[in-house]
Amino acid sequence: MDTIKHIPENGKTRVVIIGGGFAGLKLARQLANTKYQIVLIDRNNFHQFQPLFYQVATSGLEPSSIAFPLRKIFQKKSNVHFRMADLLEVDSNVQEIYTTLGKLSYDHLVLATGVDTNYFGNKNIEEFAIPMKSVSEAIFLRNSILRNYEKALNESDPDKAANYMNIVLVGGGPTGVELAGALAEMKSEILPKDYPELDFSLMNVYLFEASDRLLNGMSEVASKKAEAYLEKLGVIVKTEARVADYDGLKIKLADGEVFHSYTLVWAAGVTARSIKGISEFAASRGGRIRVDLYNKVAGLNNVYAIGDLSIQKEGDFQNGHPQVAQVGLQQASNLAKNLKNKLKGEKWKTFHYQDRGSLATIGKNLAVADLPGVKMQGFFAWILWLFVHLMAIVGVKNRFFILINWVWNYFTSDQSLRVLIRPKKRSFTDRASKKKHQVEIN
Amino acid sequence: MDTIKHIPENGKTRVVIIGGGFAGLKLARQLANTKYQIVLIDRNNFHQFQPLFYQVATSGLEPSSIAFPLRKIFQKKSNVHFRMADLLEVDSNVQEIYTTLGKLSYDHLVLATGVDTNYFGNKNIEEFAIPMKSVSEAIFLRNSILRNYEKALNESDPDKAANYMNIVLVGGGPTGVELAGALAEMKSEILPKDYPELDFSLMNVYLFEASDRLLNGMSEVASKKAEAYLEKLGVIVKTEARVADYDGLKIKLADGEVFHSYTLVWAAGVTARSIKGISEFAASRGGRIRVDLYNKVAGLNNVYAIGDLSIQKEGDFQNGHPQVAQVGLQQASNLAKNLKNKLKGEKWKTFHYQDRGSLATIGKNLAVADLPGVKMQGFFAWILWLFVHLMAIVGVKNRFFILINWVWNYFTSDQSLRVLIRPKKRSFTDRASKKKHQVEIN
Repeated sequence: MDTIKHIPENGKTRVVIIGGGFAGLKLARQLANTKYQIVLIDRNNFHQFQPLFYQVATSGLEPSSIAFPLRKIFQKKSNVHFRMADLLEVDSNVQEIYTTLGKLSYDHLVLATGVDTNYFGNKNIEEFAIPMKSVSEAIFLRNSILRNYEKALNESDPDKAANYMNIVLVGGGPTGVELAGALAEMKSEILPKDYPELDFSLMNVYLFEASDRLLNGMSEVASKKAEAYLEKLGVIVKTEARVADYDGLKIKLADGEVFHSYTLVWAAGVTARSIKGISEFAASRGGRIRVDLYNKVAGLNNVYAIGDLSIQKEGDFQNGHPQVAQVGLQQASNLAKNLKNKLKGEKWKTFHYQDRGSLATIGKNLAVADLPGVKMQGFFAWILWLFVHLMAIVGVKNRFFILINWVWNYFTSDQSLRVLIRPKKRSFTDRASKKKHQVEIN
Repeated sequence: MDTIKHIPENGKTRVVIIGGGFAGLKLARQLANTKYQIVLIDRNNFHQFQPLFYQVATSGLEPSSIAFPLRKIFQKKSNVHFRMADLLEVDSNVQEIYTTLGKLSYDHLVLATGVDTNYFGNKNIEEFAIPMKSVSEAIFLRNSILRNYEKALNESDPDKAANYMNIVLVGGGPTGVELAGALAEMKSEILPKDYPELDFSLMNVYLFEASDRLLNGMSEVASKKAEAYLEKLGVIVKTEARVADYDGLKIKLADGEVFHSYTLVWAAGVTARSIKGISEFAASRGGRIRVDLYNKVAGLNNVYAIGDLSIQKEGDFQNGHPQVAQVGLQQASNLAKNLKNKLKGEKWKTFHYQDRGSLATIGKNLAVADLPGVKMQGFFAWILWLFVHLMAIVGVKNRFFILINWVWNYFTSDQSLRVLIRPKKRSFTDRASKKKHQVEIN
């Protein structure tokens, strides 16, 4: 395998960062003005702002508002090199990585590849459910929803129409809760205007959570309020409900109950992506890579893991931290400081997580917030949620666009984004049968 | 085949409009407040603003800025029914249409399905060239361009890198000219910032036109100025250059000259889509449906065709009008007036095209404009182009977003839209070989 081209061998110590998500991007930015050479690798050429995927999925935001081209972020940083590639393997003995663009040697390697949807081994669910861990998947969900309403319109049997209109969300964490709220609002305020011929009393939004409460990473009062808000919006919430199977239409719960919907969104679990050359010996529960208090991968030198991918016994978190953005961001900051200290010959600091609170939004005006010392629910929590997310977003222009979109949304309860833009048809030849297919994906 | 559901049989005279482009949409809007029942059918659930596709393709605009959900437009018009469907056939004897959602009877049928890319029978070009007649295709082109730059970065041989960086545009009409100008600006102002390791002196933007001048539907001075502007921007313009073949890399001109590029955009011709039950006897050159001065399809009753799809001998246009938006919009207005007259028992008016002028933009500050009585080139023509297109765009919010995007662009020469958002992977089983494929399309 050839070496990745055009990355200068100029004597600088090379830090290779795999993953341009919250953690990887922060680390790259904090090291951008140092004497290190940074090579940032991601399979996409953009950073995606996950907290707002549900808004793309419910036609509340343009996809490009939450996708930030990585090259643009580092335009003025001559020591940061970006490559759009997939990591294939790590050879920690010779300190080299192998990617789809070639191989590269590293002085320091930071793994920040995050997590993907976990189907817990259920192949049916994996085939028929819709995940939401990327902008592409959010667009796919949006298109599926819009397409199903057009189909519902062509059913004279109300039960069959309901199968197209119903939406089932599995997983009562922030993703499921936020989607449920947004969809319930679409149902009551917008869809009847777009589809006057449909009877929306037939439509149900379901939220199934396996544990005994929604948002079980937050306080009891947050869980209670979130459930109350959702029920007020018309969502049918079922806790202690485990989805055992799904065949594209029929949903079977573990207790035997059956529901019908052509749209099932699976947000019930995550699992770290396996990294060849690392995971075989360093992976723990959920595929998470074990790291010490400096985020160094157990058993290796010069290899680190930060963010959702990693698992660390620290302070109150002897079973690992929650897999949330904050943890990754703080670990990235700490590692950046330590790597800078290394250049100065200074001592490294251990990581100590500071929980600054959790937020989840349920709809317009409604959110729940657990902050150190105070718990809030309702309108002010929602303002806080809006503010925190706006500030977190990369790029002045994007912040502005999102603000405008939200303000417009708030006053008009409508969006012009209910567009089903599907990819162009492309030929595809099956090598076995030699048959040519025209493929068009939702 | 069943009848399309939920379209009331309420005694109203039914006008079925196939196609929600410029002409079809205008007609539907002008008939929305009449006693007619309007059924608007389009294969997409949105109207696409074609003049700005090139901006989506060059990462200057979000796709949703130029895609307008048709249902939203007619939310408050209870006599307008929208269906997302494909037209399969027209049976003019029994006055019925057959679509992918079912069949429907009509009292008046208006065909406004427009045109698609014409490859003049060259199968290679059809397979390897990139067309640009829809938002999806513009996104595909954008993604191809971004992907090719990442590939160029991994080539050490400068000739091979150039093959990925070069872009060839075929067709010197407004589409080709506007794309060429925008790409040339990307090359000089933006790409070197994103890809500092690439040598952009290796990159060429080519524009090939088969006739003897660019923009041959406009004045000689417009053609001359457009060519001069493009060459000043660094585009290599070749007139009297016909592309004979393309295999995905090698472009062969009719005169034998050879060029290399992985990106060839085909904007060299259009052809009307064939309509079963109509085209067999009513189609003329380029598949265009022959209509009389009332836009009634020759030989039929109650069937009309407007816009690019139609061809009409009128006034100075004895060989048909140019296939431009203005003609379709004016024909739609005239037909709307006539259909309203029918309700009042009044006489119909023949169509008379009023050429209000032509515009084409070449880049920031540069455009050419032929107006009745005056021809302009340069900055003021550009301001006019900007204004005309902004006004034409449906929906206040979209106009605002586009304005903001353009203003931002103008002052910063940069966009945050260089994101390669590709569709999610989907399984696909070939029925013959039973093999399952993971398909991901650019």
